[in-house]
Amino acid sequence: MNTSSKQSPNINPHVSVDCVIFGFDDDKLKVLLIEQAHPNKETHRLALPGDLVFENEGLDEAAARVLNELTRLKGIFLRQFHAFGNPDRVSNDKDKEWLETYRTDPNARVITIAYFSLVKMEEYNPGTGSFAAASNWVDIHDVPELAFDHNQILDKALEALREEINHNRIGLDLLPKKFTLSQLQRLYEVILDRPLDKRNFRKSIKKMHHIKALDERQTGVNHKPAQLYKFVQVKKIALNFSLLHLFQE
Amino acid sequence: MNTSSKQSPNINPHVSVDCVIFGFDDDKLKVLLIEQAHPNKETHRLALPGDLVFENEGLDEAAARVLNELTRLKGIFLRQFHAFGNPDRVSNDKDKEWLETYRTDPNARVITIAYFSLVKMEEYNPGTGSFAAASNWVDIHDVPELAFDHNQILDKALEALREEINHNRIGLDLLPKKFTLSQLQRLYEVILDRPLDKRNFRKSIKKMHHIKALDERQTGVNHKPAQLYKFVQVKKIALNFSLLHLFQE
Repeated sequence: MNTSSKQSPNINPHVSVDCVIFGFDDDKLKVLLIEQAHPNKETHRLALPGDLVFENEGLDEAAARVLNELTRLKGIFLRQFHAFGNPDRVSNDKDKEWLETYRTDPNARVITIAYFSLVKMEEYNPGTGSFAAASNWVDIHDVPELAFDHNQILDKALEALREEINHNRIGLDLLPKKFTLSQLQRLYEVILDRPLDKRNFRKSIKKMHHIKALDERQTGVNHKPAQLYKFVQVKKIALNFSLLHLFQE
Repeated sequence: MNTSSKQSPNINPHVSVDCVIFGFDDDKLKVLLIEQAHPNKETHRLALPGDLVFENEGLDEAAARVLNELTRLKGIFLRQFHAFGNPDRVSNDKDKEWLETYRTDPNARVITIAYFSLVKMEEYNPGTGSFAAASNWVDIHDVPELAFDHNQILDKALEALREEINHNRIGLDLLPKKFTLSQLQRLYEVILDRPLDKRNFRKSIKKMHHIKALDERQTGVNHKPAQLYKFVQVKKIALNFSLLHLFQE
């Protein structure tokens, strides 16, 4: 059985990992995409950073390694969210052509385990490596057709991300240590991709245990300085009922 | 490349699916386990219903098929929750011995995609098929050492289930159409596996949009008849803040 690839003899040709790294930059939600280098083509296809796993590594380990090899990023907490296994997910002509360049077994059915993360964009400057000719943050509204089933993976990752924020599991490090409610609302709006009602939003925030009003206001602004807030550690919540349905459609 | 198994020439030897079917029976949480038939052994190992996927089927499809082949159950909504891919997850001696009986490539690294579901136990009577010598509902407190990494898969499935109920995504069909708050509390307690404070529980329930008090009481009981409640359809919740932290540990 031939389990080698053109990249390494140690590779499992049947299972890959893909990483959906979302970046928040105060006003936009972006996703990290690579250009798949192709020796015979001028234009490269865009794709999520992803590659085959090694025979002797776990899936989480593979995701961190692959992300690092393709984009040079490390130290990002990656959360597994879904496995994609349509039998024909890597079998369209453009995908095939690329796979024939890079894989010894381009016809193998590959099942991919997908991971996502949300980071503060300014803290991560992606580089390139392996078959990535470039890596870029792309606004989620401007994502073109991607390689393989990567548009579908991205959509599902967005769902997973929105699920997280709907349950208030937001990255505490996405905002400055002390932030205004406008900044917090903007974070929710950018991730949910729609405007929220200011009054309802503030009403809900007041009831949240992990957001605390400070006895401080903004400085150095031209408008009336807004009150500042901070996140506080709440004790482990054992039973966390979702009660306030702010926006019903 | 040999992709056949002793069961079918159409099998992908690298990827499997496993199903964690929880059953609720008003007072207990159980899980559906099969006995892995072994031609040369009297005692069979217990395992989750799971098997390799076919080359030409999707993962969801494989999960439904495998569950049906092993336990004869069908029509259960299966939700994918995690992929398990430790390189040595099927390589202990007992696992190997069984795999050598059933698989042509017993040393292949198998990555498994796990699914879970919660059903009303009395509505599902499991049977047997394929390599399952028996199938039984087992109390989650009485689960012995299982084959492969199935104890770990079960633990993770329990986490996923508790996450669901913590966000009030409970199966509306697990209770009678009209139920008492004691019945509802018992459902939460059984799944969370710990007692809840009655007063706090009732306070929270009153604020839940999808649980409605009826102008009716129990009949045919010896004690003071309790008020009845029902689940109501709530509109799609777009932003669902979790506000009340009932129990902090």
